[in-house]
Amino acid sequence: MSDLAYVEGKFVPLAEAKVSVEDRGFLFADGVYEVIVAYNGCPFKLPEHLARLQRSAAAIRLPLPKDANQIQRIIQEGIRQSGFQNTKIYLQITRGAAPRSHPFPADVKSNFIATFRAKGEVPQETRKEGVSVITTEDIRWAKCYIKSVALLPNVLANQKAVEAGAFEAVFVTSKGVVHEGTTSNIFVVKNEKVLTPPRTEKILHGVTREALLQCARDAGYETFEHTVTIEELLQADEVFLTGTTIEVLGVVKVDGKTIGVGGVGPVTKQIYARFRQLIES
Amino acid sequence: MSDLAYVEGKFVPLAEAKVSVEDRGFLFADGVYEVIVAYNGCPFKLPEHLARLQRSAAAIRLPLPKDANQIQRIIQEGIRQSGFQNTKIYLQITRGAAPRSHPFPADVKSNFIATFRAKGEVPQETRKEGVSVITTEDIRWAKCYIKSVALLPNVLANQKAVEAGAFEAVFVTSKGVVHEGTTSNIFVVKNEKVLTPPRTEKILHGVTREALLQCARDAGYETFEHTVTIEELLQADEVFLTGTTIEVLGVVKVDGKTIGVGGVGPVTKQIYARFRQLIES
Repeated sequence: MSDLAYVEGKFVPLAEAKVSVEDRGFLFADGVYEVIVAYNGCPFKLPEHLARLQRSAAAIRLPLPKDANQIQRIIQEGIRQSGFQNTKIYLQITRGAAPRSHPFPADVKSNFIATFRAKGEVPQETRKEGVSVITTEDIRWAKCYIKSVALLPNVLANQKAVEAGAFEAVFVTSKGVVHEGTTSNIFVVKNEKVLTPPRTEKILHGVTREALLQCARDAGYETFEHTVTIEELLQADEVFLTGTTIEVLGVVKVDGKTIGVGGVGPVTKQIYARFRQLIES
Repeated sequence: MSDLAYVEGKFVPLAEAKVSVEDRGFLFADGVYEVIVAYNGCPFKLPEHLARLQRSAAAIRLPLPKDANQIQRIIQEGIRQSGFQNTKIYLQITRGAAPRSHPFPADVKSNFIATFRAKGEVPQETRKEGVSVITTEDIRWAKCYIKSVALLPNVLANQKAVEAGAFEAVFVTSKGVVHEGTTSNIFVVKNEKVLTPPRTEKILHGVTREALLQCARDAGYETFEHTVTIEELLQADEVFLTGTTIEVLGVVKVDGKTIGVGGVGPVTKQIYARFRQLIES
């Protein structure tokens, strides 16, 4: 088993994988990405991830240099060669390498890279006990639905969470509207209703978020995509985060204040159990 | 004469210069940069550029792996080895390469790269006749004073300008407040007064901008750093852009509307002449 990368059309050890210093991903954050998990060799929700990759690329008018079938073959081969039980697959497409100048370069092919690593697991204790989050002002650009690599604000906010002893930072506007975490979407449970912020341009349209809404409905809960305020967040019965690698994670504290009775709630547990069934099926 | 890069402590041909696919500049736009021009081997306003590099790095808590003296020596050696008359020097510092995870990695050294190319010249005709600009809504993040590589919104807006047959796109808020261009600061001349947006967090604190304010005062004009509205921009007697590589460029049209009498104005010309003297001294 070994960390692997696919660059310039070849599989190489990840430690040897390089890009030009003039790659526009490096110079301008001019690129988009996806993170996909393969469980037992099988990529979860692959069509959904590839469809979003296409939407992100289209939103910045980045031509994808490979079609869905080609990407799928690279992913399958990468999973096979890296040999992990569960694999974290990272795809990044940039507008290629060209002398530094802002407008789109002419006649330059997009750069496609992929990396394959073992999927890290959330420690069982964390999953059982839930996590703390902090809130932080959403100072990002207007188009957060585009999964671009311009992630500096997310990096800075996530670091702030780590330093506060929290698992995640949740972006909230100055007017108290809750958007999402730096690497996750957020859900609120109140009176057995499951709420999550709507699919505006200010949040990533999470693949796990979408699957969770379905799991919640399948479990018999009413779901609402509606503007969540900081007050609703703090007064929720339960709060949880969703994301490709974390799956579903209960939140027990927001800015030091206990949510509900202070443990991972029954609705969260029930919906997560449904999600695990989906993964295993 | 040849394009050159400084990577991993060595000078190499630019075409061979690479970084890891796990460099955080590539994955997260977790880095800052500077563009410096050397005229006849002499870097212009170098202390100001290096001071700003330090401020940008401090703002994202990125340790600079080299001090100002070391950077200066690399720049001088790069200028010498590349051998251009006028050199465009690009510096980028990132938070180094590490397995992809948002928070700052422990024990990872920042990555310092530099590139050296011939400075392109603005065509004489363009300089004489002035340029058109378009306005575009400022959808960037809140901290534009940080010269970070998270430049995707600038790329998209600049491309929009190119496609509109314009030289630059100027970011304006939905409330009509003028900020700056995608690669330049903006100045307005009205009744022989020289105005430019103030040094808030929404604009880059341009080295050329600062020098121009001084040149304007030296030429006997009153200068004002004040909030410029879209109306003031359209009703200006003169408008010009400033930037390290373009220096000073007269604007004759904004969104297709003629500014003043439609040519590069006398105040612009006079201030630019002072700026050229500064370069040559």
